[in-house]
Amino acid sequence: MERIAIDMDGVIADVAEQFFRYDAIDFGKRKSREEVAGIKERDAFPNARKYVYSKGFFRTAPVMEQSQEIVRRLNESYEIFIVSAATEFPQSLPEKQEWLTEHFPFINWQQIVFCGLKTIVNADIMIDDHLKNLDHFPGTTLLFSQPHNLHFNGGKHKRVNSWEEIASILL
Amino acid sequence: MERIAIDMDGVIADVAEQFFRYDAIDFGKRKSREEVAGIKERDAFPNARKYVYSKGFFRTAPVMEQSQEIVRRLNESYEIFIVSAATEFPQSLPEKQEWLTEHFPFINWQQIVFCGLKTIVNADIMIDDHLKNLDHFPGTTLLFSQPHNLHFNGGKHKRVNSWEEIASILL
Repeated sequence: MERIAIDMDGVIADVAEQFFRYDAIDFGKRKSREEVAGIKERDAFPNARKYVYSKGFFRTAPVMEQSQEIVRRLNESYEIFIVSAATEFPQSLPEKQEWLTEHFPFINWQQIVFCGLKTIVNADIMIDDHLKNLDHFPGTTLLFSQPHNLHFNGGKHKRVNSWEEIASILL
Repeated sequence: MERIAIDMDGVIADVAEQFFRYDAIDFGKRKSREEVAGIKERDAFPNARKYVYSKGFFRTAPVMEQSQEIVRRLNESYEIFIVSAATEFPQSLPEKQEWLTEHFPFINWQQIVFCGLKTIVNADIMIDDHLKNLDHFPGTTLLFSQPHNLHFNGGKHKRVNSWEEIASILL
């Protein structure tokens, strides 16, 4: 059974939406997707570092559209691991696990990985929104489109714009 | 540079000692190492499951003898990851990371992995006290002696009884 490593932030958890919301509260105006396209989150949102260390930021992130249904179906024919580079933000670890338990109840604790560097991940397919995670991965790589990566050339990675597209490739 | 995946509980964190202490408080008498040799922790210590879910159990675990100095030296000539199967106990995640920051300050967040199944780990050498983690690992495996594994035959895994022995093999 092929193994898929699925990223959390920017793939199943819509943290970009969280950045837009928190930034709008701080600056009184919601930025548009066009305004931040291709810009790193820490540059697009001046208080980004404050947000990612604040209680509730990860716990209240919206679920990426269609991800629940499609990960549930993938979970029937692949070995799924949810892999989040989260140890930079230790306070986020229980929040992220609670979030998974709430929104992806079919993912059990054996399928969760919190790490720093994803070079440690042994899998066949990786779905991620960061080139730094995909670039070193020897297997099949899907780059999930997010505002911060829109101006990158996907290079050797296949760009996917939605979970529907992922389903059409993997299911 | 070769990569080593080092387990936490029973390898650098002396959780067996924690079980002895917590059990002695509950039952008024400290068990001997001989009494629990070769017995799974959940069988040797009737309240083991209560302990591992209790606040502070992992945070206050003693450091395994000589592990700090030898991991520090290994960290100079190997790529070290501390890999703990911890997602079964979500409350332990921040405790474990705090523990590492206190006792192994030279290990940064990029080198920490919290997971459920260790099949996800991509490394060359694995040091662990559980056969279930070592058995599927394709690289070099060192079985760290702990009371619960003393009656197992190490099989294809090299048994090590101390960090000094690990140093003599890897340094």
